[in-house]
Amino acid sequence: MTTPTIETNANTNENTAGNSGRIVLGRNQYGKAECRLVKITRDTARHQIEDLNVTSQLHGDFETAHTEGDNSHVVATDTQKNTVYAFSREGIGSPEQFLLRLGKHFTESFDWVSGGRWEAEQYFWDRISDHDHAFSRNKSETRTAVLLIENGTRHIVAGIEDLTVLKSTGSEFHGFPRDQYTTLQETTDRILATDVTARWRYAADTTDIDFNAVYASVRKIFLDAFAQTHSLALQQTMFQMGKQALEAHPEIEEIKLSLPNKHHFLVDLEPFGVDNPGEVFFAADRPYGLIEATVERERAEGSTNEAAIWANIPGFC
Amino acid sequence: MTTPTIETNANTNENTAGNSGRIVLGRNQYGKAECRLVKITRDTARHQIEDLNVTSQLHGDFETAHTEGDNSHVVATDTQKNTVYAFSREGIGSPEQFLLRLGKHFTESFDWVSGGRWEAEQYFWDRISDHDHAFSRNKSETRTAVLLIENGTRHIVAGIEDLTVLKSTGSEFHGFPRDQYTTLQETTDRILATDVTARWRYAADTTDIDFNAVYASVRKIFLDAFAQTHSLALQQTMFQMGKQALEAHPEIEEIKLSLPNKHHFLVDLEPFGVDNPGEVFFAADRPYGLIEATVERERAEGSTNEAAIWANIPGFC
Amino acid sequence: MTTPTIETNANTNENTAGNSGRIVLGRNQYGKAECRLVKITRDTARHQIEDLNVTSQLHGDFETAHTEGDNSHVVATDTQKNTVYAFSREGIGSPEQFLLRLGKHFTESFDWVSGGRWEAEQYFWDRISDHDHAFSRNKSETRTAVLLIENGTRHIVAGIEDLTVLKSTGSEFHGFPRDQYTTLQETTDRILATDVTARWRYAADTTDIDFNAVYASVRKIFLDAFAQTHSLALQQTMFQMGKQALEAHPEIEEIKLSLPNKHHFLVDLEPFGVDNPGEVFFAADRPYGLIEATVERERAEGSTNEAAIWANIPGFC
Amino acid sequence: MTTPTIETNANTNENTAGNSGRIVLGRNQYGKAECRLVKITRDTARHQIEDLNVTSQLHGDFETAHTEGDNSHVVATDTQKNTVYAFSREGIGSPEQFLLRLGKHFTESFDWVSGGRWEAEQYFWDRISDHDHAFSRNKSETRTAVLLIENGTRHIVAGIEDLTVLKSTGSEFHGFPRDQYTTLQETTDRILATDVTARWRYAADTTDIDFNAVYASVRKIFLDAFAQTHSLALQQTMFQMGKQALEAHPEIEEIKLSLPNKHHFLVDLEPFGVDNPGEVFFAADRPYGLIEATVERERAEGSTNEAAIWANIPGFC
Repeated sequence: MTTPTIETNANTNENTAGNSGRIVLGRNQYGKAECRLVKITRDTARHQIEDLNVTSQLHGDFETAHTEGDNSHVVATDTQKNTVYAFSREGIGSPEQFLLRLGKHFTESFDWVSGGRWEAEQYFWDRISDHDHAFSRNKSETRTAVLLIENGTRHIVAGIEDLTVLKSTGSEFHGFPRDQYTTLQETTDRILATDVTARWRYAADTTDIDFNAVYASVRKIFLDAFAQTHSLALQQTMFQMGKQALEAHPEIEEIKLSLPNKHHFLVDLEPFGVDNPGEVFFAADRPYGLIEATVERERAEGSTNEAAIWANIPGFC
Repeated sequence: MTTPTIETNANTNENTAGNSGRIVLGRNQYGKAECRLVKITRDTARHQIEDLNVTSQLHGDFETAHTEGDNSHVVATDTQKNTVYAFSREGIGSPEQFLLRLGKHFTESFDWVSGGRWEAEQYFWDRISDHDHAFSRNKSETRTAVLLIENGTRHIVAGIEDLTVLKSTGSEFHGFPRDQYTTLQETTDRILATDVTARWRYAADTTDIDFNAVYASVRKIFLDAFAQTHSLALQQTMFQMGKQALEAHPEIEEIKLSLPNKHHFLVDLEPFGVDNPGEVFFAADRPYGLIEATVERERAEGSTNEAAIWANIPGFC
Repeated sequence: MTTPTIETNANTNENTAGNSGRIVLGRNQYGKAECRLVKITRDTARHQIEDLNVTSQLHGDFETAHTEGDNSHVVATDTQKNTVYAFSREGIGSPEQFLLRLGKHFTESFDWVSGGRWEAEQYFWDRISDHDHAFSRNKSETRTAVLLIENGTRHIVAGIEDLTVLKSTGSEFHGFPRDQYTTLQETTDRILATDVTARWRYAADTTDIDFNAVYASVRKIFLDAFAQTHSLALQQTMFQMGKQALEAHPEIEEIKLSLPNKHHFLVDLEPFGVDNPGEVFFAADRPYGLIEATVERERAEGSTNEAAIWANIPGFC
Repeated sequence: MTTPTIETNANTNENTAGNSGRIVLGRNQYGKAECRLVKITRDTARHQIEDLNVTSQLHGDFETAHTEGDNSHVVATDTQKNTVYAFSREGIGSPEQFLLRLGKHFTESFDWVSGGRWEAEQYFWDRISDHDHAFSRNKSETRTAVLLIENGTRHIVAGIEDLTVLKSTGSEFHGFPRDQYTTLQETTDRILATDVTARWRYAADTTDIDFNAVYASVRKIFLDAFAQTHSLALQQTMFQMGKQALEAHPEIEEIKLSLPNKHHFLVDLEPFGVDNPGEVFFAADRPYGLIEATVERERAEGSTNEAAIWANIPGFC
């Protein structure tokens, strides 16, 4: 390796100020990821199914495991997995409530565990012809939940992933600035399509919520806002989705949305002597637009909306 | 929807203190994701190939696009894509240097663009039998780079993804605490396998670096540290990987690693009258351990290592 | 390379009998794969959406393209793609009818095109709240269709992929033979889960079919047969699915099913002092059972059910 | 369901001739798929690693399992899995030799098992810095093997998947026919890129082969033929790959190749005042060309090359 010459000036760079040169362990977490768990409730002949993918990660004093290979504090990831399955015997209820039970257990059972991160994906099933114990997977979306316990506070972020929606009209895009690299034509009628991925944060330590009901409501608001908004930009549609969900749910502090603009290009059929008045589209894979924002409640001067939990949630700005 | 009853008390919850009730736009970014770009340099008969997947996202004053559908500030994502391709004509060099050129262009060309996030994946190719213009993909890993420009400062994070490694011995795991949910047996000889995913942050505004050379060096240090460390815990191996890379590279401020513990379970062949002295393993898919940490340079009291860039990088704690 | 010693005796091996040593081109086909096509029908304010992934491949006299690089017969794959989009302007109707129109065009337009293979996947969309032009993707399954034209005959195979179903009881597995490698316990109550992948072949040159109606009917028969059959083996359930569909649909000649047995293992909670009466399951990824069969109408001595089309359909025995 | 009207005439359709109306079980197979198996050979300090994904499926008399749920012949898929792991204890050697041992066991151990299909994928590992027991995955390709035993004959097909190659020049495409749907321009210099997926069939019952050596040789021939052939059509390159491998390996009867034409489109930079002499390309995802052929040894009149094994190998014409 050639030794790089570095132009940084430590005095003017707050990030490097104070380096002692000693190399240390920073933030860390560990646990068991993706415990696939199917819970059947069969108290009556009409079974219920709950289908989850659960991850448990612990925070706390694990420094010597890193520096010396001393495992005396390392609650085995296998133990975390066993705990997930054992706890599910008493029911799930909602992903959020299940994670709260797990988080309480781990932080109260081990002195050196100060907090952690617990996550679940939930998959949905429909009954086949209203059958008592036969189901088919409804794959329209995935529900997510993350619990972060830090400094004794419980932060919960719920979410939805990959809910794919499309409008075949009612979407325009024009009035954008043009520079030397701009070739896009303006349009007053295009297909608007996206995969809705969103996460919403509940107020800290607020746990007495009917999480299933809020999920169903937010999902419906997203769908209806997407359908009802005459869109001049995907940004506008996205903001409406977040705004309407926040208006309906005071228990939600902020919502982050990440929406790909899944381009559907009108195919030029003129060379073949065929018109194409918004009928035939090529659905492209890549590249795609990527539109992301936080919609939140306005705060007083000096307060902040930056909960630590977001640092533990992949893929959101 | 049933209206949830919420136990929160705004007065005691710093996250909700100061809510005016008005719903506003928070952090946001938008752009074009995954521009697949292959650059052939053919100045001589011996061609060079650079293969990238580039994402460009802008930060700045885009509020009215969200609130009113006013696109007068919205540099079209299509324009961003065109710029990526046009700029590549003059060469890539390294993903980091290419992103720096893009970032400089966008922040200097539009008054209302205050910063942004540019990302690239790079894929590697080997020559076929040292041929001048025939190549085969080397899929062992993906190289990544992210540039964040915020408040006039350039933050660069480089990385490696999915470098899969395995040790067939030289790994132990014992001495962990046992509770009522612990069934795992201790072992002094197991397979240790993981997919190395790591990101390292360069000092802010430090851009005069031979990024390709550092990448090659860090990659080699990771491999050798993995191979050489007699492992008592994956945490220990991980810390060594980060520590040795930081020691060799003063231009790197911190390294985040996310390592799945890809379990290889010794198959019990005794029921079939066959021994199994560490020879036959079942490679499991899920669940898997997930071990994550930051390794960093120690800092003075009160300084912080939390660069804003991490909020824009998925999947790291 | 070490030269392998080969024990074959050409005289006794019917597959190699008659080798002249000359190396020649055998079966071949080429075309454009995965043309993503979204067709909006907007004759009225209530739009219809059809969402397809279309592949076109031609059979015929293309020998010199292979042996000499002579493209005078090679209808460009780009031309095939253009044709797909141009033809869709007049409507899709059903994947099968659309493929029939494509096949007719290509085989009638070029003297040297003797036949071909056309394939489509179809994706489903639901209306959002009965909206006129807003839709959400229903991802429960993928519909497939393949048309093979060979020797002037049109063979059509329709199918369904990845329809995921599960029964939480009503499934047993016992009475299987035990040898020295058998450790599986018998059970009279287990979860039965699978992804239904099936293909059904219509009688050759039979094209005057309401393919959409048959698809809907076969899908429903599969679901109901899965739900209603008290299962002693996944083979039994699979055979019922095929048999009931054939009974209802005389226009179908045979049905091939490929069903993974997606294992859900009852978790042993006894070490944790917890019972588990069929409530908590680990959903495994790999390995999985794989159960495959053809269900067909009995034929007279000497006749055969082996249509050439199956050689062109991946993944079925 | 509306009852479809069918225009078929059974008397003129050889496929339906002789239907009795009785619905019966046709071809069937079952077993355990994707047994992930890592075998470490540790006779010396320098370990060897073999990494496989093994599928075992049996053919034979399983009719009553389908028609009555009678499992008395159903060698449990769990038993098949156990057998795979137990047999691996004595070594793998090559995927083909391992499958031959499995096939021999199952067909000789159970009267009613007449044959079967055994398949393996093999993954490759490189040593890290020539270390004795530390490895990194070489993901450039996957090796495959299928054994079909039918009527007492062993058919072996070996293969390679997803070996990605690219030529940055030395590829032309012109002279193709033009019709009303043709818009493609001719070119004398384009990027040619593909993922090599190929399968080759050894002469039946020919098992005394150094399968590892043949694999290495065929792989090298494919790469060199791709690199060396000045290509006027991907068909021409493909035929050369197959032909050269057959010439070098008399033990191989035929080779099937399936090559996507991975389009790299030259980006039009002229609107931005920039030239683009074969330097900047957009690598497209879909659609892509799909070029497939069998290359085989010429046979005497009346003999056939259609081995039953191909019906059991997905994705080849």
